[in-house]
This record gives sequence, C-alpha cells and structure tokens, in this order.
Amino acid sequence: MFRDITTLLKDPVGFRITITELVNRYSGMKIDLIAGIEARGFIVGSALAYQLGLGFVPIRKKGKLPAETVGHDYELEYGADRLEMHIDAISKGDRILLVDDLIATGGTAGAACKLIESIGGKIVECCFVIDLPDLGGRSRLEKQGHKVFALCEFEGD
Amino acid sequence: MFRDITTLLKDPVGFRITITELVNRYSGMKIDLIAGIEARGFIVGSALAYQLGLGFVPIRKKGKLPAETVGHDYELEYGADRLEMHIDAISKGDRILLVDDLIATGGTAGAACKLIESIGGKIVECCFVIDLPDLGGRSRLEKQGHKVFALCEFEGD
Repeated sequence: MFRDITTLLKDPVGFRITITELVNRYSGMKIDLIAGIEARGFIVGSALAYQLGLGFVPIRKKGKLPAETVGHDYELEYGADRLEMHIDAISKGDRILLVDDLIATGGTAGAACKLIESIGGKIVECCFVIDLPDLGGRSRLEKQGHKVFALCEFEGD
Repeated sequence: MFRDITTLLKDPVGFRITITELVNRYSGMKIDLIAGIEARGFIVGSALAYQLGLGFVPIRKKGKLPAETVGHDYELEYGADRLEMHIDAISKGDRILLVDDLIATGGTAGAACKLIESIGGKIVECCFVIDLPDLGGRSRLEKQGHKVFALCEFEGD
C-alpha cells in the first residue's frame, strides 16, 4: 500500500486543517526559514512558510538549482542519490524547520539534515504529515540528534 | 541569464508580497482548484491555494504520481516530455487556476492546459510570477484561448 497526500491536498478543508495544525505547532517556536524537500515537501512547506510569515528554501535533487550549490550524496535502498541547496540559501546559525510530506526510511530527510548542517543551519525539528514508523525513519533521525514531528502515523498492514 | 525565484522565496517579505498580490487578484474569481506544475509551481500554487481556502492539485512529470493518471505528451526544444495528473484530481466543469513560477516558451504550461481540459477542467487563467515575453509563451497560451497573468516581466537582455 502506498500512502499519498494528494487526496488530502485537493480537499480544501483537509488541506486547510493540515496546514493550520502545523501553523499552531510552529508559530511559537523561533524559526528563521522553512526548508522543503522536492517535490511534495514544497507543497506542505510553502503554505506553512507563507502562513508563518517565513521564507522558504527548496532542497532539490541533483542539477535542478540554477546558482551555486552545495550537495550531499546518500545511499538509497536501490542506488545512490544527491540533494542540493543553493550555497547562499541559509546563513550560519539560521534555525531551520525541515518539511516533507512523508517519512519512511528517513534516508532523504537524514541527508537533507546533513546538507543543512554542512552550511551552518540548525535543525529545529523535522516535520512530516505522515510517519510510517515501521520503516524506521523517525528513529534514524532521532539517532542523528533531531526532533521529529508527524501529524499522523500509519502502522504496517 | 537565468531568471529564478529562489532568492525571492527565501525572503519572508518578498514571498509574502508575491503571494498576497496573487491572493488579491484571485480572491474575487470563482475558482474551484489550483493546479501547480512540478516543481516550482508547487511552491507558488500551494501557498496561494491555502490562503484562498482552495484545494491544490499537482501536475507532475511522467511516472511520479502513485494512483491512476492521465497524461499529455508534448514537444520541447530538445526532445519530448509528458505531464500527468491523477485521473480523479478534478471533476468535470471544475474551474482551475493553473500556476507556475515562470513562463518562457509556454510549452509546459500549454501541455498542462490541454491535460486539464482533457479531463473536463476549465482554465480560468494561467498565472505566473515571471513572464519572459520575448520567448513567446504568453502569446502561445493566448492563441490556445487562455488568459495569462504574470506579476512581472523581464525583456531580453
């Protein structure tokens, strides 16, 4: 079974509630920028950044960003991949909220955290709409020293 | 010169003004759904959909959506590509605002319009942050019968 948020996003009430819940969680925290992971993390992260009055920074797959980038290579179940950010996307000491739609094994999110930290950002929390805890992503990120929040969880079937 | 909105998005005031201008334009129009083109169209379209209280539908490159899709193949300057939407993403007669960050030749946006229309959607307008009018995208979409709006234009250098 593949968990997917597109049916939630197209529903105006579902989309609104999803973002509002995240706004309520993060409006009290001192966050400088929201970083969203390509591509569904852009959808969740952008609306959240707008509503919180913050800027938004995209974390993209290899070769997609036009200016000078920094990258982080990482292993996936089937091969390797690379995430990139613009080298001037964040300033040293910026407090970053990392956002994606879903956490499974945590490979991509873990790489995104390392990338952000490599240019001096501090990860306030890693935020997801869906957590699939059986796949171990949350504990992987927690072992890297990060806080993890997800709006909902689906156990294995 | 490559025009790019990432420096605008990371600036909280710039990002806020960009989305607010679009909210002001579209809050009076009867729109059912916002469709954003992968991947930067997700950033602009999602924040706009949230603020207008609408649902958001992603238009993606081939093979990225998990459920049953419809697609539209189109020609680019260097080869061919394919855009896809979930087959149940929109209902017949839905009034759709198509959103992307930038219009250049209009090949991708034109294909997105055809895809939306192929499943019964009506394009209210095609909305961009940046128009590069020298590349002819606006006139291409207008010849297809669509209204086009862009927040700003850059003439050729």
